[in-house]
Amino acid sequence: MDAASDEKETGRLEAFSDGVFSIAITLLVLQFKIPKLDQLGAEAHLSGALLSEWPSYMAYFISFFTILVMWVNHHRLFNHIKRVDNLFLFINGFLLMLVAFVPFPTQLLAEHIRHRYAVTATAFFTGTYILIAVAFNALWHYAIYRRRLLGRSANAAAVDRITQNYRLGPCGFSLAFILAFFNVALSLTAFTALAFFYAFTGEGK
Amino acid sequence: MDAASDEKETGRLEAFSDGVFSIAITLLVLQFKIPKLDQLGAEAHLSGALLSEWPSYMAYFISFFTILVMWVNHHRLFNHIKRVDNLFLFINGFLLMLVAFVPFPTQLLAEHIRHRYAVTATAFFTGTYILIAVAFNALWHYAIYRRRLLGRSANAAAVDRITQNYRLGPCGFSLAFILAFFNVALSLTAFTALAFFYAFTGEGK
Amino acid sequence: MDAASDEKETGRLEAFSDGVFSIAITLLVLQFKIPKLDQLGAEAHLSGALLSEWPSYMAYFISFFTILVMWVNHHRLFNHIKRVDNLFLFINGFLLMLVAFVPFPTQLLAEHIRHRYAVTATAFFTGTYILIAVAFNALWHYAIYRRRLLGRSANAAAVDRITQNYRLGPCGFSLAFILAFFNVALSLTAFTALAFFYAFTGEGK
Amino acid sequence: MDAASDEKETGRLEAFSDGVFSIAITLLVLQFKIPKLDQLGAEAHLSGALLSEWPSYMAYFISFFTILVMWVNHHRLFNHIKRVDNLFLFINGFLLMLVAFVPFPTQLLAEHIRHRYAVTATAFFTGTYILIAVAFNALWHYAIYRRRLLGRSANAAAVDRITQNYRLGPCGFSLAFILAFFNVALSLTAFTALAFFYAFTGEGK
Repeated sequence: MDAASDEKETGRLEAFSDGVFSIAITLLVLQFKIPKLDQLGAEAHLSGALLSEWPSYMAYFISFFTILVMWVNHHRLFNHIKRVDNLFLFINGFLLMLVAFVPFPTQLLAEHIRHRYAVTATAFFTGTYILIAVAFNALWHYAIYRRRLLGRSANAAAVDRITQNYRLGPCGFSLAFILAFFNVALSLTAFTALAFFYAFTGEGK
Repeated sequence: MDAASDEKETGRLEAFSDGVFSIAITLLVLQFKIPKLDQLGAEAHLSGALLSEWPSYMAYFISFFTILVMWVNHHRLFNHIKRVDNLFLFINGFLLMLVAFVPFPTQLLAEHIRHRYAVTATAFFTGTYILIAVAFNALWHYAIYRRRLLGRSANAAAVDRITQNYRLGPCGFSLAFILAFFNVALSLTAFTALAFFYAFTGEGK
Repeated sequence: MDAASDEKETGRLEAFSDGVFSIAITLLVLQFKIPKLDQLGAEAHLSGALLSEWPSYMAYFISFFTILVMWVNHHRLFNHIKRVDNLFLFINGFLLMLVAFVPFPTQLLAEHIRHRYAVTATAFFTGTYILIAVAFNALWHYAIYRRRLLGRSANAAAVDRITQNYRLGPCGFSLAFILAFFNVALSLTAFTALAFFYAFTGEGK
Repeated sequence: MDAASDEKETGRLEAFSDGVFSIAITLLVLQFKIPKLDQLGAEAHLSGALLSEWPSYMAYFISFFTILVMWVNHHRLFNHIKRVDNLFLFINGFLLMLVAFVPFPTQLLAEHIRHRYAVTATAFFTGTYILIAVAFNALWHYAIYRRRLLGRSANAAAVDRITQNYRLGPCGFSLAFILAFFNVALSLTAFTALAFFYAFTGEGK
């Protein structure tokens, strides 16, 4: 019965987290601005205005993909968690706070990528993910410390694999952050590569 | 136990998808702009201003209906899915990315349908649905290839019926897309007819 | 097993509907506009600006309350529903479309209640609820016709009570609509009284 | 069977409440405004503009944290609730209405904290939480009066502990409210301390 109640608590925290992930991912669409008729001059065409919004499409794609990857990884992490405690709940809350923040750096990146402040916007964007990677590590290490929140049957090899994958995160995103000051395109390529890494590693068969 | 865990994973992906569908469908209301008092001249009436927003009501209705139809079809598709894998998860994510994008072309259509760029806006709107239809087909074909993600008891006839219905999608929405360049009203009529087709075919009794 | 699958389908539709209700009710907050420092003159005070937003608070309160009442009634209705079919799904979708629309007439009412177009805004607001009441009746009558979607154990007296309560809706909201053209305050009072009626009648102990 | 139906009802109300909490917490991000290129002068830098938004970050952090704390406390409260009735449902709705309102005072605080109306904004912000604390008390006292909605096995000591913790709320937030008129920083410090108190007291092991 205690185990059942632990499981219910864990499930509820996971459902709440899923809610935040799904809302944050859907709010990304609010960054798109409709080109109004009177803003389009006699020569400008709507199709041109829509095409010139390519940074928004790119940013939408990148952020949708990375939030999805984070959701998948969050879920994989919770597969090993069998109970939650108060501090875990707030570390998870800190992570959610950063995930829910993602639409802002995304829109900032889309707004400035082609202009004078592309470096600042890219650094702000990648910097947000350094914090997210740190939060993921904090959450995981809190949970596995002395197997605090793990189930009895938790597979040690799978736990170690997650630990190793997560370790890469803060370094990887820091690299993307540093690259932003040299070459914005390179920084975003490294960022996307890292997201792909987290998408396709893990416990999948 | 393995089957139970597969089912739980599938259920969780479906719940996440449902979340995105329900948020996207509810965000559609944000397109409506309140006519402010000082924008209404001495002669203009609020009732006139509200009536002149008919393209927004039309676009709201069409998009609410089509997102609902997509939700129903997504659900029917998942009725046959008994497990998920990593790639399926990201194809589904690609589909959700397009569904969550729908409020933008919807608002674009409402803004421009009566003006110079009606053709472009209609083409952009219907073009989004070509991509959605392709994503639905990709998701389905990935799942049924060698019955990869189907349950043992999956009804072959029902599976074939979905395959056939889905095949129509990319062609149908491409037709609506092409029609946009000739006649906007005809294009949207074809579009709506297609949405009705997907609403009322399928496995319902 | 068939009954189990029916129940799962019904539960999923109810969960999706709940999602739309909870999002629509939470989006109501977006109507509040922050008084900016530079819009406040030397004499104007922030406290005055906040107090002068009372129509927004009132509209927020009324709409939050009525959406909550609709959610409760929707839930009570589903207590009797044991299976769903395709048409029921789209009648329910039509109802959800109107519920998700509520933030717009709410904001319109808040914007215009103190000014020249109070009548139009009140009529638009109450008119939306006529449609909602009609949609509730359509949903319910579709479900109970020849006990189509009811469970075997559905209590006939409880079903009749709902039928009678619902019958009042379209008339009641039409009355509030008509009153809007004579006296806005009276119309909104009638509207709120009706919402209270639906809040506190029903099957609750 | 009656108990099962009671439990289902309670679970559904809790799920709906969770939805409102998760949406409200995620909508907080909408307060961030993108610094546009043409608003940045020749001398101003994007990094400076982002840094100067620190009140928004602070307000985002505080409100995310407090909504999370409220969610946790709401959940703890529901751990003792075994059935719901109509009035409980609307007291809970009143509480949700205030929770969903939080993004507005949050943004108001961020907008005005550095300027002339910091006192008013802080008082409005803390004042909202007085109402929330009152609503929490009303909900709880309604539930425990003659053990109306408690389960048979409800632990009397745990119930009393919640009662005592809640009693502190209205006084505590009133103190923060009063402090706002003397010193804004002190008021917000008291406010945050109170949030921490509610985060780390309770039934956690």
